[in-house]
Amino acid sequence: MNMLDARTETWKREALMLPIWWQGDSLFLLDQRAFPFEKKVVHIPDIDHLCKAIVSMQIRGSGAIGIAGAYGMFLASRSARTCEDMEAAAGKLIATRPTAINLTKTVEEILQAVCNAQGDWRVGLEGSVIAILDRQLAFERKLGSYGAALLADGDSVLTHCNSGAYAGSGYGGRALSVLRSAWEQGKKIHVYVSETRPYLQGARITAFELGQLGIPCTLITDSSSAFLMRAGKIQKVVVGSDRVAGNGDLINKIGTYMHAIAAKHHHIPFYTATSSHTIDFSLDCGDGCPIEFRNQEEVKHIQGVPIALKETQALYSAFDITPNELIAGIITEKGVITAPYTQNLLVLNN
Amino acid sequence: MNMLDARTETWKREALMLPIWWQGDSLFLLDQRAFPFEKKVVHIPDIDHLCKAIVSMQIRGSGAIGIAGAYGMFLASRSARTCEDMEAAAGKLIATRPTAINLTKTVEEILQAVCNAQGDWRVGLEGSVIAILDRQLAFERKLGSYGAALLADGDSVLTHCNSGAYAGSGYGGRALSVLRSAWEQGKKIHVYVSETRPYLQGARITAFELGQLGIPCTLITDSSSAFLMRAGKIQKVVVGSDRVAGNGDLINKIGTYMHAIAAKHHHIPFYTATSSHTIDFSLDCGDGCPIEFRNQEEVKHIQGVPIALKETQALYSAFDITPNELIAGIITEKGVITAPYTQNLLVLNN
Repeated sequence: MNMLDARTETWKREALMLPIWWQGDSLFLLDQRAFPFEKKVVHIPDIDHLCKAIVSMQIRGSGAIGIAGAYGMFLASRSARTCEDMEAAAGKLIATRPTAINLTKTVEEILQAVCNAQGDWRVGLEGSVIAILDRQLAFERKLGSYGAALLADGDSVLTHCNSGAYAGSGYGGRALSVLRSAWEQGKKIHVYVSETRPYLQGARITAFELGQLGIPCTLITDSSSAFLMRAGKIQKVVVGSDRVAGNGDLINKIGTYMHAIAAKHHHIPFYTATSSHTIDFSLDCGDGCPIEFRNQEEVKHIQGVPIALKETQALYSAFDITPNELIAGIITEKGVITAPYTQNLLVLNN
Repeated sequence: MNMLDARTETWKREALMLPIWWQGDSLFLLDQRAFPFEKKVVHIPDIDHLCKAIVSMQIRGSGAIGIAGAYGMFLASRSARTCEDMEAAAGKLIATRPTAINLTKTVEEILQAVCNAQGDWRVGLEGSVIAILDRQLAFERKLGSYGAALLADGDSVLTHCNSGAYAGSGYGGRALSVLRSAWEQGKKIHVYVSETRPYLQGARITAFELGQLGIPCTLITDSSSAFLMRAGKIQKVVVGSDRVAGNGDLINKIGTYMHAIAAKHHHIPFYTATSSHTIDFSLDCGDGCPIEFRNQEEVKHIQGVPIALKETQALYSAFDITPNELIAGIITEKGVITAPYTQNLLVLNN
């Protein structure tokens, strides 16, 4: 049993279920596209398979693909001969999801350790991967408890997409860590889960995870949140984050911005849960972030079934940008950051 | 050939395709649930079948179900013996979609003609149905030309749900009449069609109808409109209406309110296209309107395919309420009404 394999057992005990894990001599992941209807485990023999899995969204969620990036670098090290080979592997991994800062940062962190290594760069690589997973898990626990303090007993909370266990270390990711922590503190919350077209991460994964934790929830279509806010049914909004700019602008799953505008309109606080590693200080504001446009066929089909005619043109922006003025607080593992963000986020920049 | 049958031929020439029509001795409709993947024509032998078709949304859209109500009363007259039988039929029809004012008004209009008839109340009933269809068609042409004047050459316009030909007389319904009229005037518009979960009327029907008319359009998920507005891609919003309260509050397909808030946030004018018959002067404001909640299974399945686990609870409000302050103008067959609505809508109350 190698170090990673041994560690998998520990992580499993903390997790609802691991989104990606090392077992024996191999990497495995849970195919999130078919989940929860099918629990399909995919063997990832090499980095090319991993890149394909990230691009096709078999694995997704900012925390989880950060971890995938770390495992990817470890996979690559098994066939790499030089640091340059590792650099090439890093480039491949980063290119899979250009908006996901966590992936970029994690891969670059490992690459730097490799490049700066005295002597054999392979030594210590496994330890670096373990450290990244341990850190991610600790982040989730911490930001969960900071975020839980923002929720009151009896609150109904809207969340969007899946910023949960399978989007993170397996514990609770970002938004779900907050909900999980509040629930475990005994706060009787109710969660409205927006289904999150086109991939339905809310309907499929978040609703499942909340069910596993016993947290009552109601699935809604993405366009229903404003209606519920007007009816007084939603007290808080908590979403995850794919990237946060230095000024607090949030880049997250398409639809986030719409919920944020609706929340502002109804004077409902909108929070994003994140980790200091998802803050991109190289980005002055959200508009500088590359936004990933995906294949229009992904909008035109739901679970493989067509919803529009072949000749219909569609547009699929995977993310949108929520300007900082719509955000009541950024929940991190170091506390809840509030405006002015450009100044206050700096405490995380170390 | 009876009068209705003969008239069907005339209407067909004006229409993209009729959503419901009389042929020979029978009523037929196009099943809008499977459309456009399947063009299934359904024979409606009696009023019970018609009620079932309305409830199950085989036929839908405020104008079209108004017309269906008129046909329904004609169908009912064939087996009715007394005015009381007709009253019972009217009650059944109205109960199918409580939010659709047009259905209620049309059915009550025919019932009143029946009750007030001197001599045999059957005489003139066919003529009343024809008059209602003719009027609906004329409304659509007129409101289309008033609405078209609001659109500029080169505008990109967001529309939601299907407020088009199949939701009306077959010509253009409300929102589509505006787009059609602008296009036929030579204005080079582009339309963003929000898919409209859960029934996907936008993806399926509006995108198809725009394609038939040759108007360029792009399908988006419901939650993408705010993103496109922020990117400067949308200049106007035009939606239909299921009901308008006396103060101008709009009751329309779930999601309308969210688009309206996003439009306001980006200083983009939001219009609803309607007819004077859809204004409910008995309703002081939108909050007095009964909102239809439908079976949660309709959210949990898309085209019959499950998108969430069986045990997941869902909520399906079919409509939402857009307060008048978010509406830049109400496009009607008598012109475009602007605020203050309570006062200015009164010109339609005759």
